[in-house]
Amino acid sequence: MAGDDERLARLEERLRALEDRLEIYQLLSAYGPLVDSGDAEATAGLWVDDGVYDWGGGPKPADGAPVAGEGWAGAAYSRAEIADMVRGPGHQSIIAGGAGHVIGLPHVQLAGDSAVATGYARLYRWDGAQFVVVRVSANRWELVRTEAGWRVATRTNRVLDGGAEPRALLRAGVAPLPAAPREAR
Amino acid sequence: MAGDDERLARLEERLRALEDRLEIYQLLSAYGPLVDSGDAEATAGLWVDDGVYDWGGGPKPADGAPVAGEGWAGAAYSRAEIADMVRGPGHQSIIAGGAGHVIGLPHVQLAGDSAVATGYARLYRWDGAQFVVVRVSANRWELVRTEAGWRVATRTNRVLDGGAEPRALLRAGVAPLPAAPREAR
Amino acid sequence: MAGDDERLARLEERLRALEDRLEIYQLLSAYGPLVDSGDAEATAGLWVDDGVYDWGGGPKPADGAPVAGEGWAGAAYSRAEIADMVRGPGHQSIIAGGAGHVIGLPHVQLAGDSAVATGYARLYRWDGAQFVVVRVSANRWELVRTEAGWRVATRTNRVLDGGAEPRALLRAGVAPLPAAPREAR
Repeated sequence: MAGDDERLARLEERLRALEDRLEIYQLLSAYGPLVDSGDAEATAGLWVDDGVYDWGGGPKPADGAPVAGEGWAGAAYSRAEIADMVRGPGHQSIIAGGAGHVIGLPHVQLAGDSAVATGYARLYRWDGAQFVVVRVSANRWELVRTEAGWRVATRTNRVLDGGAEPRALLRAGVAPLPAAPREAR
Repeated sequence: MAGDDERLARLEERLRALEDRLEIYQLLSAYGPLVDSGDAEATAGLWVDDGVYDWGGGPKPADGAPVAGEGWAGAAYSRAEIADMVRGPGHQSIIAGGAGHVIGLPHVQLAGDSAVATGYARLYRWDGAQFVVVRVSANRWELVRTEAGWRVATRTNRVLDGGAEPRALLRAGVAPLPAAPREAR
Repeated sequence: MAGDDERLARLEERLRALEDRLEIYQLLSAYGPLVDSGDAEATAGLWVDDGVYDWGGGPKPADGAPVAGEGWAGAAYSRAEIADMVRGPGHQSIIAGGAGHVIGLPHVQLAGDSAVATGYARLYRWDGAQFVVVRVSANRWELVRTEAGWRVATRTNRVLDGGAEPRALLRAGVAPLPAAPREAR
């Protein structure tokens, strides 16, 4: 029985890792539908209470200092601020004009009760005749397991404009693969 | 032994839920390759016999009434009609000119022998120099488990032109997440 | 005990198949982040030593014969050649100008220690004001299980310009689904 017990425990552990990956896919694939439908509370609910969404604004400044970022860059430093962003005139005008925020298949690194998902986001906007790809960005999602399931602690989103930062962000989320010297056939 | 039996049964149930999700990913990721290669029968085979694909045409009208939708909007109300759409001059001219129908990572809600997958589709068309994003749409796939595996019962596809319908469709496919009050760190 | 042992063995087998699919998603979702960050060794490490990446250049020519392909078409016939491509001036100028190589959710056919993944890739390039979709392609990834995990043996990438080859490549990667005669409801 000891052997079976160990075997069952190992199965449960492997199953848990697969469930974690799929739950993280579920979390990330919920972002677009929620933000494009304009549901501020539900979008913000993907984050933990003190979660951060940084789309160019950088880390939280010291009290009193202004948030970095201009134009489309910005940041929200809590679930309430993320909801405010969704409700704000900038986002509302984007979705009223026709828009899709599409999150691609992420690369996911699990580490117990935390995880990092790395991938691409695209913002397509309708111009009346076709869609314009206004933003293609590198995204790093730092995730935590809570009692209610996986949530976003910090999402960092950087436009792929050729700069070093989005490229480093993409690289950081993929661990080096072990060498595979065997020939294919 | 009773304890082990229960533990095994629970493992099997969790495994079945993961297999369901992956089979649904397989079904949706087959759509693009089949429709872009122009295989009418295989594309239609993703649906059940009386399956519906509504890309703007709306629900099936009463006998004798015309199908709604103009321009690129339309609908097919059976597997045979879906195959006819793929064989038709509209779709054939799209793929002969160079096109990709790309289905993004869906959000999937399982409910026993039925499921709903929600996400984005994009249609890219080659114009001889680059690709034009002619359509970005909200998609709701209502799925059923058959003896032969998961199939599409109804796919509803609405262009994200700023209207209320595609936005409501996206929202309907994502269940509210339970509150996660724990702080990230 | 014999019954339990068989049941456990069957669970392990099903779990292994799910892990294979997820590992293949991980492998393919690593490609974009690695190639867009410009890490030549890590990108090439997704392939086996004698792996092939054919983006229009065709199969390896006989010794001394020139590689087919002109303009953006080409091929690399080993891990070292793939790394050279990433380090080369063509790719470096693409990523320095702002680019995203986005691999979509693949359709995966497993066959023991080999697998085929089929799907779409898109190359978006920043033009200073928006992103241009310069390439939408059909992709076939022939994969092998090595001692270090799944790796790419051959990736074939063909632009979806309306030609027969990319369309046949997409079709080949999706097996016929068994008939599902049951009605949806």
